[in-house]
Amino acid sequence: MVLYVNGQASSEITPLDRGLAYGDGLFETIALVGKQVQLWPAHHQRLQQGLLRLGIHTDYATLYQQLCHDVTQALQQWHHDRGVLKITLTRGQGGRGYLPPIEPCLTRIVHISAWPKGRDKVSIEGASLHLCQHPWSHNTALAGLKHLNRLDQVLARQEWHDDGLHEGLMLNQRGQVQSGVMSNVFVQHQAQLYTPCHASAGIDGIMAKQVVQLAKRLGIKVYQQALDLDFVLASEGLFLTNSLNGIWPVVSLAAQSFPITGLTRDLQSVLVGHLETHTELLTC
Amino acid sequence: MVLYVNGQASSEITPLDRGLAYGDGLFETIALVGKQVQLWPAHHQRLQQGLLRLGIHTDYATLYQQLCHDVTQALQQWHHDRGVLKITLTRGQGGRGYLPPIEPCLTRIVHISAWPKGRDKVSIEGASLHLCQHPWSHNTALAGLKHLNRLDQVLARQEWHDDGLHEGLMLNQRGQVQSGVMSNVFVQHQAQLYTPCHASAGIDGIMAKQVVQLAKRLGIKVYQQALDLDFVLASEGLFLTNSLNGIWPVVSLAAQSFPITGLTRDLQSVLVGHLETHTELLTC
Repeated sequence: MVLYVNGQASSEITPLDRGLAYGDGLFETIALVGKQVQLWPAHHQRLQQGLLRLGIHTDYATLYQQLCHDVTQALQQWHHDRGVLKITLTRGQGGRGYLPPIEPCLTRIVHISAWPKGRDKVSIEGASLHLCQHPWSHNTALAGLKHLNRLDQVLARQEWHDDGLHEGLMLNQRGQVQSGVMSNVFVQHQAQLYTPCHASAGIDGIMAKQVVQLAKRLGIKVYQQALDLDFVLASEGLFLTNSLNGIWPVVSLAAQSFPITGLTRDLQSVLVGHLETHTELLTC
Repeated sequence: MVLYVNGQASSEITPLDRGLAYGDGLFETIALVGKQVQLWPAHHQRLQQGLLRLGIHTDYATLYQQLCHDVTQALQQWHHDRGVLKITLTRGQGGRGYLPPIEPCLTRIVHISAWPKGRDKVSIEGASLHLCQHPWSHNTALAGLKHLNRLDQVLARQEWHDDGLHEGLMLNQRGQVQSGVMSNVFVQHQAQLYTPCHASAGIDGIMAKQVVQLAKRLGIKVYQQALDLDFVLASEGLFLTNSLNGIWPVVSLAAQSFPITGLTRDLQSVLVGHLETHTELLTC
């Protein structure tokens, strides 16, 4: 495990950080292949957009250089085939209560940890899903962001402790399918794909975006729209995406079985090649 | 400023704490009068209930002793007439991603800071309110809790920087009046009081609960129900409550003026006496 705080090898932040007090910040979870970073441009662009949407004003060019420097330093301490790079940015300390400082001094946390065990097998054999009772909060202003207010995911995730269940499917406040707890969801109907909107809940997933682009290149239409649970249960197949897992086919949900479709396997295959060409050494 | 982490004078926590990663925790903001703590039983009971609702399993009797010990120690370093005691409890470190540890080792943060300036004047002269654009997130499972997912309040609070505006009024997802950014709201119609439900948003305020009890003792009926903005704007008067401010009469909202009613002044007067008898030295 490697941990850097504001460019220093450190395992400490102040308890007064707004990230802790209010969840006032953002994070990215990124796959590492050796010392190479997967989909780096997409991840740091999402951070930049998130800062804008939260009204966290900062000189992004400088911040970008600092992040590159932090990550590069941290990677020098990392000596494994694969790893998980987590970058957390908070609005730092200060302000008066909820009121943020106008010129915040951001806290940067760079954390590299071991690749989670058992996930590759799920990519091959498929995932069994728990249908979560806890739904997404509804809020258009926060929807799509990978911010630090993640109690919805914590409460949904603690609904099951059966290791035979690999992920949970979460609904939104309207009872429609919104996402996995840690993933985005795609549903197949008649060789076309459907994935939920993030207008009022959900996270704009980096891997989901790649998969949409790849599907389009393969001539597969992808519709982003509200998805009723019945529509999902009546689908030919479904899969989940996230930055570490790539594509996870779903083989069961709510006591119903699903086949792993040829389309899902095709996308998995194309994605592997795509990610190989989008994994890079940071240069900054 | 006095800061204790897990019973030690400290200004450090690990960046891996779930409080930072996910906002996985709770907090209380409590008025101090010298070394005495206001409404302590109500505050620690809300913490206990919040832990239960978040599924944070802990031996509360032991935790209560630890909190008493932490607060008592911190108060020994505090030498001012008044102060603000903030207690933060997080689910600590560990788990796998969103999945919490089954037996969490909670992080306790006890922070005492200076009494905020200028607030007493507002109690006398009344508060001018900004009408916030950013609404509360809608989620029945999280509503009422004073948890650490507070981006709604941060985004609402950063809408204004005019020191002549003392608080913001927040709506819920249905466009109804929900609360102040840092307070609960009560509206007067024909000598009766109305305050919003917390079924889908809002915080179950400690001071609001005291005020409801005191109003009932004075023979004033209090209805908890959904409040349309028009109903609030057409009211005879309104006021805000929170643990530091007690009762703040509202004198303006959205370019409309309001009188400070006799009922509000009566409640302020009764509340002062009530708080004096509910401020105590901790004994543990």
